[in-house]
Amino acid sequence: MGAKDQSLNRSRLDRLRFCFSELHADALLVSHPANIRYLCGFTGSAGLLLVELPKATLFTDSRYTFQAKEEVSGARIQIAKDGIVKAVGEALRKRGGQPLVAYSANHLTVAQKEALHSASGASVRWLKDASVVERLRAVKDREELARIREAAELISEVFRRGLPFIKPGISELELAGKMEYTMKELGASGASFETIVASGPRSAWAHARPTAKLLKKSELVVLDQGAILRGYCSDLTRTVFLGRISPKLRRMYGAVLEAQEAAKKAIRPGATAGEVDAAARGVLRRRGLAKYFTHSTGHGLGLEVHEMPRLGRGEKFVLQEGMVVTVEPGIYVQGTGGIRIEDDVVVQAGGAADLTNATRELIEI
Amino acid sequence: MGAKDQSLNRSRLDRLRFCFSELHADALLVSHPANIRYLCGFTGSAGLLLVELPKATLFTDSRYTFQAKEEVSGARIQIAKDGIVKAVGEALRKRGGQPLVAYSANHLTVAQKEALHSASGASVRWLKDASVVERLRAVKDREELARIREAAELISEVFRRGLPFIKPGISELELAGKMEYTMKELGASGASFETIVASGPRSAWAHARPTAKLLKKSELVVLDQGAILRGYCSDLTRTVFLGRISPKLRRMYGAVLEAQEAAKKAIRPGATAGEVDAAARGVLRRRGLAKYFTHSTGHGLGLEVHEMPRLGRGEKFVLQEGMVVTVEPGIYVQGTGGIRIEDDVVVQAGGAADLTNATRELIEI
Repeated sequence: MGAKDQSLNRSRLDRLRFCFSELHADALLVSHPANIRYLCGFTGSAGLLLVELPKATLFTDSRYTFQAKEEVSGARIQIAKDGIVKAVGEALRKRGGQPLVAYSANHLTVAQKEALHSASGASVRWLKDASVVERLRAVKDREELARIREAAELISEVFRRGLPFIKPGISELELAGKMEYTMKELGASGASFETIVASGPRSAWAHARPTAKLLKKSELVVLDQGAILRGYCSDLTRTVFLGRISPKLRRMYGAVLEAQEAAKKAIRPGATAGEVDAAARGVLRRRGLAKYFTHSTGHGLGLEVHEMPRLGRGEKFVLQEGMVVTVEPGIYVQGTGGIRIEDDVVVQAGGAADLTNATRELIEI
Repeated sequence: MGAKDQSLNRSRLDRLRFCFSELHADALLVSHPANIRYLCGFTGSAGLLLVELPKATLFTDSRYTFQAKEEVSGARIQIAKDGIVKAVGEALRKRGGQPLVAYSANHLTVAQKEALHSASGASVRWLKDASVVERLRAVKDREELARIREAAELISEVFRRGLPFIKPGISELELAGKMEYTMKELGASGASFETIVASGPRSAWAHARPTAKLLKKSELVVLDQGAILRGYCSDLTRTVFLGRISPKLRRMYGAVLEAQEAAKKAIRPGATAGEVDAAARGVLRRRGLAKYFTHSTGHGLGLEVHEMPRLGRGEKFVLQEGMVVTVEPGIYVQGTGGIRIEDDVVVQAGGAADLTNATRELIEI
């Protein structure tokens, strides 16, 4: 971690302290790995970060001794000898004074919570953290935006380089393998999720995993891919057709693209996530396709490939400048196939600005 | 899913019912995806399986409608319109009769548990499931053993094919990318974890992620890779040296290999996991290297890359025929580097039998 990241971590921790003082908490226990990374730089899979007003402590185990020293800034490191959860509980017990500790009910398991409770003793009072770190993370700083933009440009290039391989006879798995290898060739540390290549009837599964099935002529192929670059994720979906598409499928493709454009137009600071979803859904309703749109319109993107906000039906979350979201309406017709078009956009004063830049025109191969 | 798998699922569900009747539970709520897959075949990421005595129900959402129909056997499918957890809670409320429901405190989050509680009402009584599904999964059936063996042979071949690329000038990331691409070329659906290529001083990080660092002469390189084939995982680590190794590092390599052999020898039905760990640790203690062995000796392997049993210090878990575990002692010396040697073995009546088959002799490149 460079000096710059150190100052970032300090300012993030200070903003967080401001948030949890609003919760009237004395401390915040951060358990979700992406939140821990955001606040102190640690990327290991086993750790808990205890943020108090004057200090922050990362608890991890001996497997991560060297890595923690190299990565962590803004927090001191404590290597737990006998379980990380237990070490945190004991630190809270020693602290004394009936502290009010905020924690994430969405990430802590029932067993972890019970172990904490038993190690800390009954004097510690617990309250829910109201997702303060996730809300902080939803608005990206300049350094984060630069990284997401780079990851988005990288994945657009991966799609372009993959196009010549999309043809009858290649298996979904081989194509996915080529896409993921290209990501690494271009400098990504890996895929931000298992690449989806779903062809023919399988394209109607919104979350299909690639299989040994071979691509065939006259099939829709949904390609959903994302890369991680310097810790930040991208997420891009395109749907292509092998051969000459039928007028009916062409109209469906047009409807999905129109729904995506309507959603992008609805994005601006002050709009709710639900309004953006409604814009996409409205277009598909007018085309008689709403019942085939079986998921939400998009999701936040950053250190994680799914984070706040969710662009779903009725969501009240208010968009702000600096948020990054995917816009990805899709329709899935059993037996026929699926069509999804997805871009990553940043919320700016003037509206949504695309970060991914692969063509959205229908590609017939 | 073929007819064979359907009968497997039925027999697994029946064995499970036997276990939870020992808990005196009326139903078991299965929340961990690998457990759900094991019991009914569903591979989606959002689902809860409620196993009752006469029936089993998979609750999922509309994104998985088609996939659930294609994959699930032994359970009926219910598509939740307004949240999966809520649908389960309401089903339990309708059931009536103050059922005693076992659940996994290790997988359910505090928030999910509270949502269940509020939807089911106070009449449902909850108890912990004592990891019944994980314990069932620890002993593999014949079909599972065949798949793990294939995945282990595949990853051994990936290592052999990767060897010509391990040389000064290639980056850790590029090498990891080549290994993962080879996995898919050989038919794997993907890596069972992010491939580790850690060179030079970074090899002393037991859980290093590959970086843009280039491999250099006179460095240790730890390669830890695993593949998923037909749902089952493998996990293989080898450590190679770029150039002629020093006598001191050669002795260290020899000590790790000896520790691994001692651990394998300690494996037999009836031995405890802790005895296997102690065998490896004892060899390293006699060589003055015990303090550098900062993790446990191994872990179970199957649908997940880390599952029961953990071969850790003092673990009382008793090994049985048909269990599959990794055996992977390692030492990590800050500034110098790390050495780890890992194989997958199956517990048989006569002791441990190797599933991975890449050479364990020191490779100098």
